[in-house]
Amino acid sequence: MNRGGSLRVLGIDPGTLVTGYGIVERGRSGDLIHVCDGEIKAGRGVTLAERLLSISESLRKVIGEYRPDCVSVESVFFAKNVKSALMLGHARGVVLLSAAFSKLPVHEYSPRTVKQAVVGYGGASKEQVQKMVSLLLNTASAPKPDAADALAAAICHIHHFNEPLESLAASRAE
Amino acid sequence: MNRGGSLRVLGIDPGTLVTGYGIVERGRSGDLIHVCDGEIKAGRGVTLAERLLSISESLRKVIGEYRPDCVSVESVFFAKNVKSALMLGHARGVVLLSAAFSKLPVHEYSPRTVKQAVVGYGGASKEQVQKMVSLLLNTASAPKPDAADALAAAICHIHHFNEPLESLAASRAE
Repeated sequence: MNRGGSLRVLGIDPGTLVTGYGIVERGRSGDLIHVCDGEIKAGRGVTLAERLLSISESLRKVIGEYRPDCVSVESVFFAKNVKSALMLGHARGVVLLSAAFSKLPVHEYSPRTVKQAVVGYGGASKEQVQKMVSLLLNTASAPKPDAADALAAAICHIHHFNEPLESLAASRAE
Repeated sequence: MNRGGSLRVLGIDPGTLVTGYGIVERGRSGDLIHVCDGEIKAGRGVTLAERLLSISESLRKVIGEYRPDCVSVESVFFAKNVKSALMLGHARGVVLLSAAFSKLPVHEYSPRTVKQAVVGYGGASKEQVQKMVSLLLNTASAPKPDAADALAAAICHIHHFNEPLESLAASRAE
């Protein structure tokens, strides 16, 4: 979508219990604009397959409504243990699938890089990320924790997106 | 779908490189009928997101064409390491999502139970599973390894499906 040099990034923080999402736009002057954020939670007593369906359907709605240009998500190379890696993998698979289904490129950044991008410190706490995301995006209240992590991933991609605005606009107009 | 007491099970063996699938039908007399099988492989140089999309689209086609009654898949509680658990989780998430999207119930069996069901021995090798699946389903040639594992999961569910044929037919006719 050609928004005249703007860039709209959907950040996602996958999880089988809670999946956070948040869209940040880089305006023409390079400013950060908060577009939306939220958390996808499945009700109790719901099977894993139904949870994954709920994540898939919610993301499809968000993508359809806000038309982001790309997806930004934390890369994962480790987890507490094999079981939590398996669970995270299930949610992450559905997140990547949702992006591919909508033909959105996926950008991955390590958790440290994402924290560095918003707090300036790779070892920042979840609360620090929440506060800084709220400050950077000038939101009335702090986003919920998983939504804040998703917004942080989106901000991180905007910071790392080095292509000059002019060439971006030109490539989109083709 | 009411097939007068028959049961059609889609077994799936998820993997990000190769996902095997196979459909087995339990006929009215309780016999096992091989319906189809195959392996979903993504080409080289394809991103993980695109691979997951290829798994999702292929499974959707198979489900649409053969209309199985349910899905049977191996449960996983361990993996070689965190990285392989994460990768397996990605593929498995897409498999469970495909089932939920088509409103198919998912049945899970441990790898030992699946091997026990087809070879009679929980520690059976992949080759033994391949041979026994081919014998049980009377296929002209042995199915490919991952397709054989998928067919084995389908056979396992049929063996464990204890509901009498009469009550099954009755519940479907409602």
